[in-house]
Amino acid sequence: MEESDRYKVLPVEGYTPGIGVVVRMMDLVRSRTLRAVEGLTTEQIDYLHDTESNSIGALLAHMAAVEVVHSIRSFEDRAPTADEWERLKTPLGLGEAARREIRGKLLEYYLDELTAVRERTKAQLRTKDDAWLLEERDYVDGQRANNYYIWFHVPEDETNHRGQISWLRKRLSA
Amino acid sequence: MEESDRYKVLPVEGYTPGIGVVVRMMDLVRSRTLRAVEGLTTEQIDYLHDTESNSIGALLAHMAAVEVVHSIRSFEDRAPTADEWERLKTPLGLGEAARREIRGKLLEYYLDELTAVRERTKAQLRTKDDAWLLEERDYVDGQRANNYYIWFHVPEDETNHRGQISWLRKRLSA
Repeated sequence: MEESDRYKVLPVEGYTPGIGVVVRMMDLVRSRTLRAVEGLTTEQIDYLHDTESNSIGALLAHMAAVEVVHSIRSFEDRAPTADEWERLKTPLGLGEAARREIRGKLLEYYLDELTAVRERTKAQLRTKDDAWLLEERDYVDGQRANNYYIWFHVPEDETNHRGQISWLRKRLSA
Repeated sequence: MEESDRYKVLPVEGYTPGIGVVVRMMDLVRSRTLRAVEGLTTEQIDYLHDTESNSIGALLAHMAAVEVVHSIRSFEDRAPTADEWERLKTPLGLGEAARREIRGKLLEYYLDELTAVRERTKAQLRTKDDAWLLEERDYVDGQRANNYYIWFHVPEDETNHRGQISWLRKRLSA
């Protein structure tokens, strides 16, 4: 994407048009997430604002886990297995377990995970077409979701937590 | 939208297909914003977590102001006038002026403004077509934005601040 296209939503090449627009929105959201955490140290990533707060690292791990669980629903049309839930439950659930377990890592650890998950997502999306966006999957609350919703929601949830990351970053004591 | 379509992105009727999908995304984002602030009192809306914090009310006023300024760019293809900036600068800029001036109102005051702005947006969008989404406008930093970007960004910015509202809501002392 050219610098002059920074404020343009255009279908990304290599995908069908509707999927290309979704990918563009995901890329835009990600670029802002990366800017929001640029240069943070491990101490800053682990900062807990209060006893109920999530760290920036936990929020980054959450973003990757949300994309993994939605990928399983969308691309494999199934619920996560018990093993997958076990691996995902802490970053998905955040809170006390995440405060205890998700810490001590460099920023690159979280960014590498986000990038690896996103590359797998994009590889899958390149094999789909716009009609696939309307296919439905079992989702939460006994409801059905279509693939369009799933890939709208992944960057939506990321944006929601990026707002919290920006808030926390302004209050880092370090 | 039926309850069974809660997790589906489908083009909203009354718009061309691409615009209908954008409107659906805006509606989904808005429904979550409304849920995030449901039942808050004036005292809760005005709560300031620390000396740098924005209140929930200021963030709601910001969402409406962001949509107004983007509507002017998108639908009127111009920058806001001096009078418009004067009226918008406090909710757009947030910070000290917003802490001083945006307070003492009921939740309904903010929700009515959000609804009024959104109704004007939708009335305009009903007159446009998908080719219009690719038309470009002058935007920030001397850059051009297309209408697709503008109407992606409005709910993106809302989502970012909704994440902050949810964070603040969990810490209300009242």
